[in-house]
Amino acid sequence: MINFTVGPVQSNDEVRTIGSEQVPYFRTPEFSKIMLENERLMLKFSKAPEGSRAVFITGSGTASMEATIMNTLTKDDKAIVINGGSFGHRFVELLSIHEVPYTEIKIDVGKALIADMLAPLDGKSYTAFLINVHETSTGVHYDINMISEFCKRNRLFLIVDAISSFLADNFNMAELGAGVMITGSQKALACPPGISIIVLSQDALKRVEIGNPKCMYLDLKDALKNQEHGQTPFTPAVGTLRQINIRLKEIDVNGGVDTETEKIAALAKYFREQIRGLPFVLVSESMSNAVTSLHPTTASAYDIFTILKDEYGIWICPNGGGMKDTIFRVGHLGCLTKEDYDKLVSSLKDMQVRGII
Amino acid sequence: MINFTVGPVQSNDEVRTIGSEQVPYFRTPEFSKIMLENERLMLKFSKAPEGSRAVFITGSGTASMEATIMNTLTKDDKAIVINGGSFGHRFVELLSIHEVPYTEIKIDVGKALIADMLAPLDGKSYTAFLINVHETSTGVHYDINMISEFCKRNRLFLIVDAISSFLADNFNMAELGAGVMITGSQKALACPPGISIIVLSQDALKRVEIGNPKCMYLDLKDALKNQEHGQTPFTPAVGTLRQINIRLKEIDVNGGVDTETEKIAALAKYFREQIRGLPFVLVSESMSNAVTSLHPTTASAYDIFTILKDEYGIWICPNGGGMKDTIFRVGHLGCLTKEDYDKLVSSLKDMQVRGII
Repeated sequence: MINFTVGPVQSNDEVRTIGSEQVPYFRTPEFSKIMLENERLMLKFSKAPEGSRAVFITGSGTASMEATIMNTLTKDDKAIVINGGSFGHRFVELLSIHEVPYTEIKIDVGKALIADMLAPLDGKSYTAFLINVHETSTGVHYDINMISEFCKRNRLFLIVDAISSFLADNFNMAELGAGVMITGSQKALACPPGISIIVLSQDALKRVEIGNPKCMYLDLKDALKNQEHGQTPFTPAVGTLRQINIRLKEIDVNGGVDTETEKIAALAKYFREQIRGLPFVLVSESMSNAVTSLHPTTASAYDIFTILKDEYGIWICPNGGGMKDTIFRVGHLGCLTKEDYDKLVSSLKDMQVRGII
Repeated sequence: MINFTVGPVQSNDEVRTIGSEQVPYFRTPEFSKIMLENERLMLKFSKAPEGSRAVFITGSGTASMEATIMNTLTKDDKAIVINGGSFGHRFVELLSIHEVPYTEIKIDVGKALIADMLAPLDGKSYTAFLINVHETSTGVHYDINMISEFCKRNRLFLIVDAISSFLADNFNMAELGAGVMITGSQKALACPPGISIIVLSQDALKRVEIGNPKCMYLDLKDALKNQEHGQTPFTPAVGTLRQINIRLKEIDVNGGVDTETEKIAALAKYFREQIRGLPFVLVSESMSNAVTSLHPTTASAYDIFTILKDEYGIWICPNGGGMKDTIFRVGHLGCLTKEDYDKLVSSLKDMQVRGII
């Protein structure tokens, strides 16, 4: 199978080799060293401001989205949240569950966030802003510079879910003034799923310090305290953390985050050029390098997913809910080459010849 | 390294081979089939009563301990909790965080629970009972039959953390009348850490149904609903779930849970025979097959751990906190053989010759 989903994505041989090894015991100086290196490189690649910290949660991205809300926001906050798809909706639900007052900006599928949408909220009494910088469900990459300016002007605490955008799109946490950046192991880090990562600025750390989340497992004070010496409060996904370590070091020696981003951007560009002429309409008016979301005009998106899986040995990424038949996505994260995209495009062209699309 | 810790433990070649493979996309009928099989075999091996369900949480055992408390207990319950070590203490902390009223029975390190300790609470207005059937930190296996009788007599909802005991010690959820059994991927299942598992009886399911946990990530209603069709609400540790699948099937074809338990019991017995004459005192007066906890009389427990790690290529399991220098543990879970124990014992005898112990 060739895997073009947005996660889990394909891992390289070094990551897979670690997957084949015995998982070591972890309450050791050896594992602490790995974890401290992981933190250092995560801060480097997110371009986090001085004094930031990173913690590694054994859980999916949602665990880190929820931990962030539970630990950095309270009933005294008033948040703006952008909801342009499944993950924006998830932020809205999490704010509701944890009783953080919010105003939701709903955005139609594929549409960008524009200044006019934010204008009515300018100069109001908000305290926080939550954004999925890449709304993975629709492939929309929001204008984070515009959001950053709005937040700076209004002194808003900016929480960025960059789960599928980290390493794929340019992101400079310090320049943007973001308080939190979240990502996961199974996106551009191209490791197995099971770990999510939260990078916290000093502003965020202050919020965590005075916070009182009613949850032991998602308590970031505890996670931060343990991570000071490269440990975790509970048994983590040790194997995946070792895989993350080798990937972070590999990115570092190969030129760093910008080189990695260029590589992903080049693959995205190549694929988008190759599909011209196929009966697909681009869904997103502001694309991330992480994924291309497509609306097929001649067939069901889910049928295309199933036929590619069963007859061509290829996974593309189906959508759920109301978008199941109208949208599919092709990811550009993980260990993929131009030759892989050639195979995908020739399969799609074959489906066209067969009258399936 | 040979790994005698209590987790992560050594995996067999089949599990490691899956670790070396690409992680597949999981919103597919193929992955659903694996997850439904995992649930079926977990119910079989825990000997769960008719109508029980199992869910798989991407997180450590603590995530499932907390999810169980959040989803099955409320402020209207009144719980008895046994605290004989780190994990009993964790249950106490979780009850506090979630404001479930409780009475704690504190037990000294290594001591068994005896009927006299429960007698004062008999016939009182309690509703629930929480026990780490094997208190992993001290190696004490509690008398679950006595606890079960007490719970049946008092109609208590019985929550059993069997994280390190599942497959290692006999356990029959139906006969015991337990409401919940919890375990994890990195103990006797001998897979990498990252997944914990909750088995819920019909009584537990009823409690979940009317519960209202203030946490999306640990919401068991959502997990149960998704697991009905072999899925999870959020991206799970897909690779580890595939590894669990191969292990469960392997146990099944090799004679089932009782054969697996006998194997572990035989290794524990063998090790305990071999260490006679070494300067160690057994800590637990009621041992689990999962681990042997030892108090060295001539040296620091942590020094023994460090020297075995650095000079003999062997991990035993150190204790934390106040037990760091007085107790170490030797596990009997995972892919281990008598020859592995021969190496450990000869290393210890060598340390004795060298005057280290």
